[in-house]
Amino acid sequence: MDPKFFDRAIRGPQVVLRKDAGIIAAYSGISPGCNVLDAGTGSGFLAIFLANLAQPGRVTTYEKRPQFHKLAIKNAKRAGLENIEFINKDIARARVRGEFDIITLDLKGPARLVKKLDKNLKPGGVFVVYSPNIEQIKDAHKEFLKFGYEAKMIDCTVREWKVGISTHPVHSGIIHTGYLLFGIKVALPLENKT
Amino acid sequence: MDPKFFDRAIRGPQVVLRKDAGIIAAYSGISPGCNVLDAGTGSGFLAIFLANLAQPGRVTTYEKRPQFHKLAIKNAKRAGLENIEFINKDIARARVRGEFDIITLDLKGPARLVKKLDKNLKPGGVFVVYSPNIEQIKDAHKEFLKFGYEAKMIDCTVREWKVGISTHPVHSGIIHTGYLLFGIKVALPLENKT
Amino acid sequence: MDPKFFDRAIRGPQVVLRKDAGIIAAYSGISPGCNVLDAGTGSGFLAIFLANLAQPGRVTTYEKRPQFHKLAIKNAKRAGLENIEFINKDIARARVRGEFDIITLDLKGPARLVKKLDKNLKPGGVFVVYSPNIEQIKDAHKEFLKFGYEAKMIDCTVREWKVGISTHPVHSGIIHTGYLLFGIKVALPLENKT
Amino acid sequence: MDPKFFDRAIRGPQVVLRKDAGIIAAYSGISPGCNVLDAGTGSGFLAIFLANLAQPGRVTTYEKRPQFHKLAIKNAKRAGLENIEFINKDIARARVRGEFDIITLDLKGPARLVKKLDKNLKPGGVFVVYSPNIEQIKDAHKEFLKFGYEAKMIDCTVREWKVGISTHPVHSGIIHTGYLLFGIKVALPLENKT
Repeated sequence: MDPKFFDRAIRGPQVVLRKDAGIIAAYSGISPGCNVLDAGTGSGFLAIFLANLAQPGRVTTYEKRPQFHKLAIKNAKRAGLENIEFINKDIARARVRGEFDIITLDLKGPARLVKKLDKNLKPGGVFVVYSPNIEQIKDAHKEFLKFGYEAKMIDCTVREWKVGISTHPVHSGIIHTGYLLFGIKVALPLENKT
Repeated sequence: MDPKFFDRAIRGPQVVLRKDAGIIAAYSGISPGCNVLDAGTGSGFLAIFLANLAQPGRVTTYEKRPQFHKLAIKNAKRAGLENIEFINKDIARARVRGEFDIITLDLKGPARLVKKLDKNLKPGGVFVVYSPNIEQIKDAHKEFLKFGYEAKMIDCTVREWKVGISTHPVHSGIIHTGYLLFGIKVALPLENKT
Repeated sequence: MDPKFFDRAIRGPQVVLRKDAGIIAAYSGISPGCNVLDAGTGSGFLAIFLANLAQPGRVTTYEKRPQFHKLAIKNAKRAGLENIEFINKDIARARVRGEFDIITLDLKGPARLVKKLDKNLKPGGVFVVYSPNIEQIKDAHKEFLKFGYEAKMIDCTVREWKVGISTHPVHSGIIHTGYLLFGIKVALPLENKT
Repeated sequence: MDPKFFDRAIRGPQVVLRKDAGIIAAYSGISPGCNVLDAGTGSGFLAIFLANLAQPGRVTTYEKRPQFHKLAIKNAKRAGLENIEFINKDIARARVRGEFDIITLDLKGPARLVKKLDKNLKPGGVFVVYSPNIEQIKDAHKEFLKFGYEAKMIDCTVREWKVGISTHPVHSGIIHTGYLLFGIKVALPLENKT
């Protein structure tokens, strides 16, 4: 993948930054062959980033707003990826089929979708909620615990530096993007499965 | 890959953390089929993390200390990866062959290795230097500029949170691991290549 | 004041750190002659720090637990300050008299005390709530808005560095202490005062 | 002092922020009656902030650029402080007299001034160097060690938050201002003083 993909892709109003995409990759344990469910697509940065790493697995991504849906398709073409299914629907109302290794949500009201999508997450799979605010994280975290997931919440700050005669972080820029909540759907021990 | 690999692998005294591995993946643009050169291996966390994502590409990793070399091989077996070549040599003295898409260095004195390994980095490839201190970063940055690389230096802070009735970042823990310096070996425009 | 006071004073289980005390001083605009109301005293670090700067003003500080009350008195003696009144009572149940320029709260359930203590805060005065968690801050913030205060919430991170041949922040230590919420009791314009 | 002084004072191109002024106050142990030497004055924010807390002590501040010198005098008048002596000279070339409890430097090349001003710092006094970059800090730190000072370097990050239905740090703003280096001029034990 072009290491400058995040700089060169077309941006809608909000995108998942490279730092958060990298952290999602590392903490979800994404691997070749994984199948990922993603919503909302937005500009498609996260879906594309994950699709690249999940090959030959596939990413299925939902977006209700047509202009973003189209923008994301354009960005995927630029990135040369064909393992993404773009669906122009509100995931909250869609009938979601299949089982996924990883589910990533970057949309309003993620908590209600945990209940809905639990059936689509494989045992051992990882549910990722990305949210700019604490409130949505708290709600989703509560749902994770209800479903017996192992939950972990982190924030990630990346600062760019100037290096040279005068070395220091850049003076201003992005301070906060979103919180990252991970829920591992712990596989049940055998005796409980019968 | 097991999302808990970083928790479960055997640790030597120092390891690249999941956060830094994720950032290296995202900023280097690692993709299926990439070939990676890595040194020093240490406990093998970074080599294993990148090997998983680079399949069917390969990671070649150098480590001069035999006990780490062996530990890393064990960790790779646990992770079930076979696309890593572990070499028990000091990369500074070894004869390194082949061309790589990504080079990652986590060892003392990275600057002198930029000169040595430039010939092993493909045009458009990314050179990553991970260092706990500013001084090594400054030295390597200077080398990057000499070789015409586009350089970017960042630091990355991840904080774990407690979520519930009382929500806040954990009170103590890891503050600093290392700085991350990326150098892109810009491909020359055609007219300059003749 | 001894620049090492914070290192040398006797510590109970939790103390306000120098960084937070400094930020409280700067954002509250504490000045010579200010009168400060403080609760809970804890080990007395904040009361002592503010009392030093507020001279010849006074600090009145409430603490319900006798052992902390006594510890704080000892620390004040060490610091050589006589402008602090230590009261061994739960401020939530005490009858608080007088008007103060600054009120600082570092205790459980600060929101309910905003209502109680508003009458003790001079117009133009500053109400400071220090809390380890977001929930208490949200509750107190809501109270501040009810009372027409101008509210500002910040967090403050201080990292210590190693400087020398290898320069970098220390690798581990304190990540989070508390959030700092400031409410300015805006003085009413003249026409509304009659 | 008006808690909004930092918002209302007239700003030149660069000012010491409230957060850094608060940290300097806390780590230097400034107290009523302290005498402070400060350079360069800049817009005068730090001199004014410290002068307010040091009363009835005095702040002597040097600034070589006439327009800043005048601006700072204006800001001090607004703040209603009369215990500041503004000197329109380059401190590097001036003949500095008197002994001070605290010296604060916010100018280029602080290291060379440590040597010059050591004689103006009382035993037990605190030398503060504020610098945007690591290089100046390293140089000044080396000087501190030469003079037997106890040195401590920190950075301080303050983030403002939005609090309400959606609670989170503001998305962008100031990331880095400067590093803060403190040197305590340890008082010699008696036997070495003769």
